[in-house]
Amino acid sequence: MGRQLKLNLFIYPGGHHEAAWRHPKSHTDRLLDIRFYQELAQRAEAAKLDAVFYADGPALESNVQFATRFRIEPFTWLSAISVATERIGLIGTASTTYLEPYNAARLFASLDHLSNGRAGWNIVTTGAERAAQNFGLDQHPPHAERYDRADDFVRVVGKLWDSWEDDAVVADAGTGVFADTSRIHPVEHEGRYFRVAGPLNTPRSPQGRPVYVQAGSSEDGKAFAAEHAEAVFTAHQSLGSAQEFYSDIKARAAAFGRDPGQLLVLPGISPYLGSTEAEAKALKQEFDELTQPEYGLGILRKLLGIDLDGVPLDGPFPPELLATAGQAGSRSQLVLDIIRRENLTVRQVLHRFAGARGHYVFAGTPMQVADEIQRWFEGGAADGFNIMPPWLPGGFDAFADEVVPILQSRGLFRTEYSGWTLREHFGLARPESQYSRGRHTPGQPGAVQRSQHSPGEPLLAANT
Amino acid sequence: MGRQLKLNLFIYPGGHHEAAWRHPKSHTDRLLDIRFYQELAQRAEAAKLDAVFYADGPALESNVQFATRFRIEPFTWLSAISVATERIGLIGTASTTYLEPYNAARLFASLDHLSNGRAGWNIVTTGAERAAQNFGLDQHPPHAERYDRADDFVRVVGKLWDSWEDDAVVADAGTGVFADTSRIHPVEHEGRYFRVAGPLNTPRSPQGRPVYVQAGSSEDGKAFAAEHAEAVFTAHQSLGSAQEFYSDIKARAAAFGRDPGQLLVLPGISPYLGSTEAEAKALKQEFDELTQPEYGLGILRKLLGIDLDGVPLDGPFPPELLATAGQAGSRSQLVLDIIRRENLTVRQVLHRFAGARGHYVFAGTPMQVADEIQRWFEGGAADGFNIMPPWLPGGFDAFADEVVPILQSRGLFRTEYSGWTLREHFGLARPESQYSRGRHTPGQPGAVQRSQHSPGEPLLAANT
Repeated sequence: MGRQLKLNLFIYPGGHHEAAWRHPKSHTDRLLDIRFYQELAQRAEAAKLDAVFYADGPALESNVQFATRFRIEPFTWLSAISVATERIGLIGTASTTYLEPYNAARLFASLDHLSNGRAGWNIVTTGAERAAQNFGLDQHPPHAERYDRADDFVRVVGKLWDSWEDDAVVADAGTGVFADTSRIHPVEHEGRYFRVAGPLNTPRSPQGRPVYVQAGSSEDGKAFAAEHAEAVFTAHQSLGSAQEFYSDIKARAAAFGRDPGQLLVLPGISPYLGSTEAEAKALKQEFDELTQPEYGLGILRKLLGIDLDGVPLDGPFPPELLATAGQAGSRSQLVLDIIRRENLTVRQVLHRFAGARGHYVFAGTPMQVADEIQRWFEGGAADGFNIMPPWLPGGFDAFADEVVPILQSRGLFRTEYSGWTLREHFGLARPESQYSRGRHTPGQPGAVQRSQHSPGEPLLAANT
Repeated sequence: MGRQLKLNLFIYPGGHHEAAWRHPKSHTDRLLDIRFYQELAQRAEAAKLDAVFYADGPALESNVQFATRFRIEPFTWLSAISVATERIGLIGTASTTYLEPYNAARLFASLDHLSNGRAGWNIVTTGAERAAQNFGLDQHPPHAERYDRADDFVRVVGKLWDSWEDDAVVADAGTGVFADTSRIHPVEHEGRYFRVAGPLNTPRSPQGRPVYVQAGSSEDGKAFAAEHAEAVFTAHQSLGSAQEFYSDIKARAAAFGRDPGQLLVLPGISPYLGSTEAEAKALKQEFDELTQPEYGLGILRKLLGIDLDGVPLDGPFPPELLATAGQAGSRSQLVLDIIRRENLTVRQVLHRFAGARGHYVFAGTPMQVADEIQRWFEGGAADGFNIMPPWLPGGFDAFADEVVPILQSRGLFRTEYSGWTLREHFGLARPESQYSRGRHTPGQPGAVQRSQHSPGEPLLAANT
């Protein structure tokens, strides 16, 4: 079997299109019903997807007057999904700026235990300026400082996850030794931002550590991803842009001495499907027509620092305003590039970003969507995709029912899971505890506590 | 129906007896298997208990060489339990010293959403000195400061949970209004410890706020409980001690202008059951004989600050050592009182605390256990109990199968749930948002978003 696509279901409450909740196809009444999300994850698992993914941020950000932009708390939600599924990965976002490492380490270790090794961590430094005021800060730390802190954070949680070696739990009722404390290590981390004594207060989890995911596209973000990430989520509107990112980030990983194959590049795609291209485009148009300009203008105001009140929506983007636009990050740059390159009206810009906030929106037949995915996958632009359904649940069902089988028939996507953990789905190595290095040779009996292929096996082998 | 007992299942990994994991009755191999805990909660629900409860602390505390004293992370675990149950309450411990209020508010709101209104918060200031070093502090903040901080913490999370009024979500597809932002309030909290702008980033949860539980028995702890708590967990070895605590805490609540009936007193009890009293006592003895003195001595050393190495286990507690014992909190005092009052050998002291760390251990027939519960309940000592099974799962099964039916037949305990939320089980009022006061009169349509008696009803009423 050749190289295989990785596909995640990226879940936003109400779907990714900002006005999806107004469309009769949406189940807006179920947006806080966990069973709705369990069913979505079960459908994604039936389609053999790699993972479901929740974005997150510790602030109420967008204007919820017009959109379903409240937040689903990822740890609780993914824990509830974990027990309704068996194979699919569970990727949650957690901020290195607004969480304590010890708490984050516990939450992910527990999610990995609950799910028998399916946890993934989308490492973010939090873009939302407003978060700072929810945590007693006068202002959001600057970009570079946030990444410095993220680096320290990743190092300390890595130590915590490694602090119990895989075979630390002995559970020998006869001798009365529950844990071999010579295999449980204080971490004594003294970093620039964090001082943590450790050890963690829970045994090492099935994957050792959750899969490290990252989504920054800034210089700092790319440097961080190249060093630490095992998967990168990224937004591109064209094959060329994605190819450039792909080869850049893989080269950066290699420069850190890493195997570039252990860093997956996963752009987002928000697909509208129809039996003809025209039908798919008409469907997209239906959603775009439900948008409320006031909402999109608010997002642009925040992203670019420009006020478009009173500017005619169906006229061009005023160049003099554009000249004053600021850049709050890589997403602002992406928006400015598109406005400048394509000479869009204000309304066209609003529609362009209404679908998936700058991610690639594609309307076509199932064959066309599959072709586009294959083109990026084989064209050095992607190792797979985050699927971003415009609305829920139908926007995902259409993809699962109509596009996935085409990808499977082409031999590009699995028809059955071959492993149990997210690391196995993604083809990533299981990290050995840094504290056991030199003690065990890899593969030596006892070096890992459980077979990765036997989720039913008790985690604690009671030697009674 | 007369006054009804409240009964919680207090879950410790491996059971409350420190050596339970060594006993063949225990399922030590399932201690990290979420299905094991889901099954326990389902059994507790079948017995119509009020809640399951997890203690917690952000440090590895006791010596895991000899006991199963790792920690279950409560939010993830309770979320996974919530979706395997329908009625039973879910009480998790969270520290006001080592969590950020915004993060804690999100986690509990989400658990309350997931469970349709069954979340409870055991508010702790964290007793574990070692926790400080996991959070960059040189030392654990002093007792009084921790309680000051807890007071500020409770005030700010209360504001966050109230920040979305119950009817803030409109979801009117026709007008395009998803939320009435005049009913979503910044909290602008400026306390002594916390500055939080708010609002929370999620709609108000079914119970409004989780049930507030507290377990401190110090002066600061009792003052805090009297002002804020809706249930108090407490440890007493005798009816007299419990009666004294009961009347004191109820009087303190009244002094705050509160209805003492809205503050439940729930002592712990760890029952050993047998068909005769002798059989029950022999069962307890079996567990006590599995204890390892080194473990218990370590606990005493930490609790009392005295080193008993080399002291004969079957001799008396050396008075000169006792004279130097320090008091690290209300639990130390309880231990010292018992040692002094009962003139125990060192081994007897170790056995006394091996069962439930100072909570009441009672061995007897099901009838005797029911009698004892009734005696405390009707004797002004308890509104109910935390049931602390010595081992799992059988230590709880015995109570559920043999004691609960007796309490039910005496009309002291429900035979069916009458409500759906933990507040309903406990007979506690649902707090109105502090931001809606004066706007709605209680009971006015629209003042609450969902009927508390209709968990199947969509939380977001889509007016499409």
